[in-house]
Amino acid sequence: MTSTSLNTMSASELARRLNRREITAEQAVRASLARIELRESQVGAWTCVAADAALARARELDQGPVRGLLHGLPLGIKDVFDTVDFSTEYGSSIHRGNRPAADSAVAALCKEAGAVVIGKTTTTEFAVVAPAGTRNPRRLTHTPGGSSSGSAAAVADWMVPLAVGTQTGSSTIRPAAFCGVVGYKPTFGLVARAGIKSVSESLDTVGFFARTVQDVGLLAAAASGDTRLLDTQAQGAPRFAVCKTHEWPQADADTQAAMSEAESGLAGAGASVGELILPRLYSLLGQAQIEIQAFEMVRALAYERINHRARISERLAVMLDQGMRISAERHEMNCALADKARRLIGDCFGDRDVLIAPSTIGEAPPGLDDTGSPVFCRMWTLLGLPCVHVPFTVGRTGLPMGLQVIGRRGADREALQAAAWMHARLTGDPNVEQ
Amino acid sequence: MTSTSLNTMSASELARRLNRREITAEQAVRASLARIELRESQVGAWTCVAADAALARARELDQGPVRGLLHGLPLGIKDVFDTVDFSTEYGSSIHRGNRPAADSAVAALCKEAGAVVIGKTTTTEFAVVAPAGTRNPRRLTHTPGGSSSGSAAAVADWMVPLAVGTQTGSSTIRPAAFCGVVGYKPTFGLVARAGIKSVSESLDTVGFFARTVQDVGLLAAAASGDTRLLDTQAQGAPRFAVCKTHEWPQADADTQAAMSEAESGLAGAGASVGELILPRLYSLLGQAQIEIQAFEMVRALAYERINHRARISERLAVMLDQGMRISAERHEMNCALADKARRLIGDCFGDRDVLIAPSTIGEAPPGLDDTGSPVFCRMWTLLGLPCVHVPFTVGRTGLPMGLQVIGRRGADREALQAAAWMHARLTGDPNVEQ
Repeated sequence: MTSTSLNTMSASELARRLNRREITAEQAVRASLARIELRESQVGAWTCVAADAALARARELDQGPVRGLLHGLPLGIKDVFDTVDFSTEYGSSIHRGNRPAADSAVAALCKEAGAVVIGKTTTTEFAVVAPAGTRNPRRLTHTPGGSSSGSAAAVADWMVPLAVGTQTGSSTIRPAAFCGVVGYKPTFGLVARAGIKSVSESLDTVGFFARTVQDVGLLAAAASGDTRLLDTQAQGAPRFAVCKTHEWPQADADTQAAMSEAESGLAGAGASVGELILPRLYSLLGQAQIEIQAFEMVRALAYERINHRARISERLAVMLDQGMRISAERHEMNCALADKARRLIGDCFGDRDVLIAPSTIGEAPPGLDDTGSPVFCRMWTLLGLPCVHVPFTVGRTGLPMGLQVIGRRGADREALQAAAWMHARLTGDPNVEQ
Repeated sequence: MTSTSLNTMSASELARRLNRREITAEQAVRASLARIELRESQVGAWTCVAADAALARARELDQGPVRGLLHGLPLGIKDVFDTVDFSTEYGSSIHRGNRPAADSAVAALCKEAGAVVIGKTTTTEFAVVAPAGTRNPRRLTHTPGGSSSGSAAAVADWMVPLAVGTQTGSSTIRPAAFCGVVGYKPTFGLVARAGIKSVSESLDTVGFFARTVQDVGLLAAAASGDTRLLDTQAQGAPRFAVCKTHEWPQADADTQAAMSEAESGLAGAGASVGELILPRLYSLLGQAQIEIQAFEMVRALAYERINHRARISERLAVMLDQGMRISAERHEMNCALADKARRLIGDCFGDRDVLIAPSTIGEAPPGLDDTGSPVFCRMWTLLGLPCVHVPFTVGRTGLPMGLQVIGRRGADREALQAAAWMHARLTGDPNVEQ
């Protein structure tokens, strides 16, 4: 095994070999750095990379005991997470060179678990809409999606096996889908948000990227301390329900085809696949998510909005203006609607373990000026349910396609297990289930 | 009217005179600064005061149009809120000299509304237990309570008419009670937390201090953008229910006497006063709050816990160790219990508008090594209900006593109205109702 192929290995496999001292952290980190050196000028997934510091840290780990779940694993961290050893600019020129006083909780916990932070990955401006310029490694003329553009692209391009991001609307699931990797947005509240640039308190959620479901479970277990997420092996076939959602008319032929492929593939593999038609109430959640985010952004980004208006992108400024027009009464109504929908969604699952639903309208769209539509993610973020994007096919032009698996609130392990089961069955690759 | 008496005026009255240009912001700020100059060496309510900057800001405001609800009003901000123009140390030597890149949402919004930030007020270490050394201005040998020690003391000692703090357990209501001022903890989620040092995401809540209920409503309206909070005048007598809670056996003679005084005083003033005995479920919430906070602190303070253990107080270290022993499963159970209690509490109110319950065991205890018991606040923080401490009497040794008024979730205006009504009726001062 040469270090040049270590960058394509899953995090879980790397961890096994690192724990047995069959490979060194330095080798793993060198493999990551070599890939970044080769490809970063084209992909643009990073705001900064600290090669020397990462190598020093890797050598230190190699000389000590195994530190934790992520011992020696290269990690990318989205640049909305505060880090003491990297500048943290939140995708905005307002914060150029900002060096926070403390690591975000996720950064600190991942480092404690032995991760080697390679650098910070790109984000749209404040994790909202204005793109970072990152390219989709599967086709460089196309968007990687956002807002966690760099984390998805870096994992898809074999630069790192693991990366963290966030999701307020569709910022984990969409870039995972466009780049063809696994993305996992946990149940709201499962992972601490301390030290993340806040955009919308009701919605901001930490997200995880890897190339297998087992790997996102590993990363999430380290970041949350919930080791139940390590067990991604389903006991028997999960009970699925296809949930096309009220947004289904917006799904293009690729998404329709992916859904058909999943339905027949899962049924063929022995799973029970039902269908869930959501009550009308759920057709209102997309708009509620937009308004709740806009209302809360006006407040969360008050400092920047008030003092640095000229350095805010036009697109974000428009959203902030929209947010300014939403009254406290209307926000209250939106929150009450969301509460009601959250209360009722458990019963909607019926006897199903998980739902499968579109992640995106279709393949990653061409161009770098827009990160694509968030329409298929807004509702699930607002509901706070665990979502796992599973890539398993390609669209008409050959770009990655997949679907998201959605679990009950708090049933993150079950969602990961169903996603891993589906990933293995639909890709025919027995390794991806592990 | 000389500027020396302006420091004792309510914020609402100051605002009226400032809006009519009967007084200047510079006069108001000079009055605050003079009082601080006189008393700060004894009280110790501030981590820093920026006299020159505050005066410059006041003169700037005097030369322009009325900026907003807080135009020209001196304000203190607890040192767990990020501020770009003051060091922000979170009550910990780990963060000595920290200067954040952005104002917290509350600081930015209050400044936008025209507030003149006089300085940062003291906090216990990370707004948890280890005291800041601040003294109770009503009796300097006694604790002012915590964690928002400086905000409560500064308002009580006539240094500023308004101050902001936070509450995770009892950090607004308790110091308000011990210092004899009005403290208001809004419904969870009403006020943005962006830029506050996170301790416990499920619990951390922004709080407000003033000397009248109308004034806390004014400050909260500016900080949230919800102008409904400006209307603190009740239409008719509120329907109260005394709620002694399962912790009542811990209430001392002063709290018992205050409750009796309130019951007879409110009934005598024409209010309907019932009694609410909470279901047994609610007896479990105090312990759940302790465990949820400990569990979440382990994660929120991960950077400090892992990297600066030696500079964490022994008392906080013990709490973090306790938090480390709480499993993800147990945390999930605690959160489920809290969810259930939140769902059911609305029905417990029955036909009552608000509850009245103890704020503290009794008067502020002597000594500065401990900020007093949080036992009567934990449950209400966990429930996320709006709480307003109303000071209206004194205890056996002459220190301030009062009770908290608790509203339904989201019914903050109604809670403030009932608190203002009660404040006026029980103190006999018609001005405090306004």
